[in-house]
Amino acid sequence: MKSKQIHLVSRPTGVPSQANFNLVEVTLPDLQAGQVLVKNTWMSVDPYMRNRMIDRESYIPPFQLGEVMDGGAVGEVVESNNPQFPVGARVSNISGWRTAFISNGEDLTQLPEVDLPDQHFLGVIGMTGLTAWVGLTKIAQLKPTDTVFVSAASGAVGSVACQIAKLYGCRVIGSVGSDEKAEMVKAMGVDAVINYKTAGNLTQALREAAPEGIDVYFENVGGEHLEAALEVMNDYGRIAVCGMIADYNADSPQPGPANLLLINTKKLTMQGFIVMDYFDQYEAFVGQMAPWLAEGKVKSEETVYEGIEHAVEAFLGLFEGRNKGKMLVKL
Amino acid sequence: MKSKQIHLVSRPTGVPSQANFNLVEVTLPDLQAGQVLVKNTWMSVDPYMRNRMIDRESYIPPFQLGEVMDGGAVGEVVESNNPQFPVGARVSNISGWRTAFISNGEDLTQLPEVDLPDQHFLGVIGMTGLTAWVGLTKIAQLKPTDTVFVSAASGAVGSVACQIAKLYGCRVIGSVGSDEKAEMVKAMGVDAVINYKTAGNLTQALREAAPEGIDVYFENVGGEHLEAALEVMNDYGRIAVCGMIADYNADSPQPGPANLLLINTKKLTMQGFIVMDYFDQYEAFVGQMAPWLAEGKVKSEETVYEGIEHAVEAFLGLFEGRNKGKMLVKL
Repeated sequence: MKSKQIHLVSRPTGVPSQANFNLVEVTLPDLQAGQVLVKNTWMSVDPYMRNRMIDRESYIPPFQLGEVMDGGAVGEVVESNNPQFPVGARVSNISGWRTAFISNGEDLTQLPEVDLPDQHFLGVIGMTGLTAWVGLTKIAQLKPTDTVFVSAASGAVGSVACQIAKLYGCRVIGSVGSDEKAEMVKAMGVDAVINYKTAGNLTQALREAAPEGIDVYFENVGGEHLEAALEVMNDYGRIAVCGMIADYNADSPQPGPANLLLINTKKLTMQGFIVMDYFDQYEAFVGQMAPWLAEGKVKSEETVYEGIEHAVEAFLGLFEGRNKGKMLVKL
Repeated sequence: MKSKQIHLVSRPTGVPSQANFNLVEVTLPDLQAGQVLVKNTWMSVDPYMRNRMIDRESYIPPFQLGEVMDGGAVGEVVESNNPQFPVGARVSNISGWRTAFISNGEDLTQLPEVDLPDQHFLGVIGMTGLTAWVGLTKIAQLKPTDTVFVSAASGAVGSVACQIAKLYGCRVIGSVGSDEKAEMVKAMGVDAVINYKTAGNLTQALREAAPEGIDVYFENVGGEHLEAALEVMNDYGRIAVCGMIADYNADSPQPGPANLLLINTKKLTMQGFIVMDYFDQYEAFVGQMAPWLAEGKVKSEETVYEGIEHAVEAFLGLFEGRNKGKMLVKL
């Protein structure tokens, strides 16, 4: 069995390019006792992976040069020496960026028996959806009376966050980077959408969209977005820091918002989180999300690239705003 | 009865100066039924007052041009038509920046029967001490195993915060702006003191002072201090934002720290607070602080200017680092 894999071959400064990656074909060895062969059917590309391209200590180890990268994927067991995962079993795994791999089963999770397309388990009902749900419900302690601002509202996490906040009864404002994305976000029922590329003064646009101020900011972007959110936040507002994509490809450190003192005077709370810390909440999350999906109350937004040959292009596209909803690679 | 008062006569941009203030003598009217005449004996000058010189909406109304300012003070009732506050009663009040005033009693609080100098009720066992205590125990949820970094450690709030954190069993690191202040902070039992003016790279100095990282940052300064703290914080660290004095006199907005993304990757919590929200905790605070003071476990650090003629000088001195501990004006 052959496996096509994407290796990291050099560390980017600033925006990564195809030159940082290499597509390699390897031959997998024969299965040992207890092992299974998994063929991945879908893989995820995520903004956080940009940070793993930097060689530094963080909450997750950096990718190693000359080695295959990893990340979320779903696949099917095609050969099995492990009764827990028979041939045909559909599994989620963290061995993305490759078409096939051998596992002893420890890093595999059987997909729940829910009538949903497999790739949803990488997105709306996978880590992406859990991230949105944790940020709103556990970090920001969402209440129905809150006005919620979601940056990158058309993104993988943002699009789910918007929908969850609407289902909680909140007034929701989203920011996006194109009119096409604005249409998509409006169609999800979001109350006001700002195209930050054409809005001019973002603080002013946000103030107009939320004349009574915002109570919760779901932070995906950083920079000017954070500055605007701080300016428009109400007293005791909560900021759930999911990521700051504006910083990821910066050549040099980007200055933070000039109005951080508002955290003091408005008595704000700004809290960062990493979804890994909340894996024990997955079942509780699925308990809410599965019915929402079944009833059509939440829709999965997806952008799909086909073939591992296009995985790098899909990944790079994240930083050019090429995705609407979850960016996926079909293998 | 005459009262000398400090009026705000113009709004500063950047560093305030004597020209923004005026000393005015007024004659107080005769007492009405229910009223008392209070002669202030001590008044407080505090960094937060700089923000009240700006005409904008905030948690506390701005000072009005051409009118007397206000702030914390303690005084003595010298004439009384109110049995609740007989002549000789010692009262704390928020009618500082003046030598005497008339009150109906609603804004007066009798000083507790504790054997402490009156001015301590403006400092270590007043709002200043409560601020330090709330920031550490309510906002940062201090634990004995924490390593705590206090900026402006020789300041009014900072010097109390350092001592409370030591009494909780924490390892404490303080930053100060002179070697003389460093000596004072060391004498309080703080484990490591950084003179940020001579330390060179603050992040490096902080890392050396806290080789195992910091868990709690008590933020009084902002700017470079916050950037260094973020860099050296441990996962799940907590930042209690009491103030950012570095920003108060800035002519133009100062950029925030370039490493705010660490709030996400280190899963930090940064929370602002204003002591007013915790007045209901004052008794609980006194219950801890009064015995500490009585037993000599906490010492009050004070810098005293004499006479209302020097109140503006005392206030301006706050921004030049002229105070060790609480800055007070004896009237």
